[in-house]
Amino acid sequence: MKFKGENILSAGQFDRAGLISLFKEASNMEKIVKKGQSDILKGKVMATLFFEPSTRTRFSFETAMLRLGGRVISNADMVQTSSFTKLETLEDTGKVVSQMADVIVMRHPVAGSVSTLAKFSDVPVINAGDGSAEHPTQALLDLYTIWKNFGRIDGLTVGMIGDLKNSRVQHSQCEMLKHFKVKFVLCSPKGLEMSKEIVEELHRKKLDVQAVNDLKKFVGMVDVLSVSRIQKERFVSEREYKKFAGTFVINAQLMKFAKKSAIVIHPLPRVDEISVDVDDDPRAKYFEQVKNGVFVRMALLKKIFKG
Amino acid sequence: MKFKGENILSAGQFDRAGLISLFKEASNMEKIVKKGQSDILKGKVMATLFFEPSTRTRFSFETAMLRLGGRVISNADMVQTSSFTKLETLEDTGKVVSQMADVIVMRHPVAGSVSTLAKFSDVPVINAGDGSAEHPTQALLDLYTIWKNFGRIDGLTVGMIGDLKNSRVQHSQCEMLKHFKVKFVLCSPKGLEMSKEIVEELHRKKLDVQAVNDLKKFVGMVDVLSVSRIQKERFVSEREYKKFAGTFVINAQLMKFAKKSAIVIHPLPRVDEISVDVDDDPRAKYFEQVKNGVFVRMALLKKIFKG
Amino acid sequence: MKFKGENILSAGQFDRAGLISLFKEASNMEKIVKKGQSDILKGKVMATLFFEPSTRTRFSFETAMLRLGGRVISNADMVQTSSFTKLETLEDTGKVVSQMADVIVMRHPVAGSVSTLAKFSDVPVINAGDGSAEHPTQALLDLYTIWKNFGRIDGLTVGMIGDLKNSRVQHSQCEMLKHFKVKFVLCSPKGLEMSKEIVEELHRKKLDVQAVNDLKKFVGMVDVLSVSRIQKERFVSEREYKKFAGTFVINAQLMKFAKKSAIVIHPLPRVDEISVDVDDDPRAKYFEQVKNGVFVRMALLKKIFKG
Repeated sequence: MKFKGENILSAGQFDRAGLISLFKEASNMEKIVKKGQSDILKGKVMATLFFEPSTRTRFSFETAMLRLGGRVISNADMVQTSSFTKLETLEDTGKVVSQMADVIVMRHPVAGSVSTLAKFSDVPVINAGDGSAEHPTQALLDLYTIWKNFGRIDGLTVGMIGDLKNSRVQHSQCEMLKHFKVKFVLCSPKGLEMSKEIVEELHRKKLDVQAVNDLKKFVGMVDVLSVSRIQKERFVSEREYKKFAGTFVINAQLMKFAKKSAIVIHPLPRVDEISVDVDDDPRAKYFEQVKNGVFVRMALLKKIFKG
Repeated sequence: MKFKGENILSAGQFDRAGLISLFKEASNMEKIVKKGQSDILKGKVMATLFFEPSTRTRFSFETAMLRLGGRVISNADMVQTSSFTKLETLEDTGKVVSQMADVIVMRHPVAGSVSTLAKFSDVPVINAGDGSAEHPTQALLDLYTIWKNFGRIDGLTVGMIGDLKNSRVQHSQCEMLKHFKVKFVLCSPKGLEMSKEIVEELHRKKLDVQAVNDLKKFVGMVDVLSVSRIQKERFVSEREYKKFAGTFVINAQLMKFAKKSAIVIHPLPRVDEISVDVDDDPRAKYFEQVKNGVFVRMALLKKIFKG
Repeated sequence: MKFKGENILSAGQFDRAGLISLFKEASNMEKIVKKGQSDILKGKVMATLFFEPSTRTRFSFETAMLRLGGRVISNADMVQTSSFTKLETLEDTGKVVSQMADVIVMRHPVAGSVSTLAKFSDVPVINAGDGSAEHPTQALLDLYTIWKNFGRIDGLTVGMIGDLKNSRVQHSQCEMLKHFKVKFVLCSPKGLEMSKEIVEELHRKKLDVQAVNDLKKFVGMVDVLSVSRIQKERFVSEREYKKFAGTFVINAQLMKFAKKSAIVIHPLPRVDEISVDVDDDPRAKYFEQVKNGVFVRMALLKKIFKG
């Protein structure tokens, strides 16, 4: 796949070779950051347009751009502080902002709106989350964290736990992991199972997908423990929620059943689904993921501008 | 006129020589941007104080400063996120911010407030719009767009259409265009005509001013078609509004009557007054204007610091 | 005291040697700013997390970082524009942001919250004000202003006027001034006197502390006139407030009784406690303080990164 000059809109646009070349570049970026700042993107300006605030994601993109020697113009809250949203179509906003910046990073609560803006932009647009639909750089940093910790992705067993029906994060992980020879183990409360479409897509790729309800057994099987938030409102009943919330929490006690070499990933912020007593476990990688997010976004920006 | 160390408060402060030297500098800036980033303003800090949000204008100034190697400290929404507005006079705010920054870019909903702050600032202040009064850099980019497309301003016929009574943009264009040998053709709904004072000022400069009501005739006469928004509330009656809104829209059909060499300019955001079917017409320059705005502001900043 | 890699949380953490070395560094920074931008902190990223807006303090820190060649990622209003505050503990926020930035500058309305976040941060954290508790860099710039104007602090008489009971600023000044041989003269309305604990602490350091109620006498005694705001609600009665507000204002008339060599300092914003007719008096140093704030914060950042 080509990176130079391209929009980054969807987890589905990446192929195996693209992912691996990106991870190698991200690894290279770690060395650059250790040495100090790069001037690779000197003279380039990134505009961040957040129609829905997300300090974490915005900071990560901005740090990535700045560490490469680029500059940033930023709107952290387009809805509150911009006439764009009141008077102007997304199409015109895309056209306008792309006259001033060299790349646009956009977040929006409505699925599809980043693609709409991108169609009219004269510069590449990166999707930093559009509602329930896509957040491709989150999936990239998840996979990079796996790749970095194991030195590979092929051959691993990836366990996904949480609200698999609604989790944008885990859907995107599947979309990218399908390019590798991984086994999937799924664990979710009743009614919140992974959709048939995604499971069938994994089957088409001849990948093994297994549902496991016993938490200890589940934890013991996996190399990668991918955890996501569950909103109380999603459960079919209060009783179902309590059953889950009371038992499906990743804590130090449960981690005794996990492999020594396993890793735990989570997009953050977490609420109760991972207990703080796991934080000091060397297998907990959710804070390292934040650091990896900067490296992956640096790699992505570098490839968009330089190939 | 002198630029170095000066406040930029009003369209009226520019003379013919100053405008032309600024446009030449802006033209030079286009080359600098193509080559990458300049370091002309390395070490300089610009503060943006927006008491009224305007992402478009703020982005343009910030991009201009960053592309010259300067740095930016930014408040996109002073009213929401600053105790300045609650506790402090504009005079003190000017004095305070000018101790930290080397230039201040300010927008405020109240006419005259930028001048008030500028009086107490120890560094140059640029007016980025103060209510209904002034927005001098918008007029600068309008004229630069004309100058760039025709290679001159003298000898052109400039058509102004819209709410000529209330349009800050078109008033400022007149204020600057009066230094050149242009003919004015005006087209506005009943009750929204250009004020007598402005027309008389143009007459004093021995410039030809003509009112035309027939839209096709109007469009066919002009080299520059300067369009502005019209707010429904301004019309004398609903009937008058409908008559105008239904007929006075610039669209592809109407553009057939325009000269091949004509250009269409608009400050954006547009609502209905220019149809999207004009966007692909090479004569449509309203998105190019956004790009020109960065070049003009770069030129202005360079001249304020370096002369 | 050590600066490199340390959190800056409290006025109480500075010792005499640390303060003097910092002031010398700040003095050095004045020369660097005159020459243009430094590249001392090239490659370093500062995150500003303001859970309570303060444009003045944020601008000062950001200018300091930028003038040293560093970069800034900024959230001016965490409460409005961040899910951090809704979903996440301060502990997790500290851990997360410290994966992306090299230093964190934080302001928060609740006393103690900056220390809480700092405990979990992997990078140094600077307290930019936590409610009624601490604002150490304000005290640093106050003392630097004294040191710079007199060439010393030992031997001076410092007069404090205002709401001495509640003023965070003046409490922190005492906390730092106690390392020098100064005399204190205190002047406050009834019920708003300096707390016994602070006075006793100064006595333990064998420093002279005197209360004076006559304003002219007070003004005539001091080398440094440290003024703070008084909120009307703090007074024991409306009558007491009027008595104070009517008489305890620093104005040009009163300054006739002050020493020729005296200086007036105030944290700003001021309301009525210093009259604008004092602004042109060369002894008024409250705007110079703003400039000094940038130099002191540059010095602090330099020492945190480089020692």
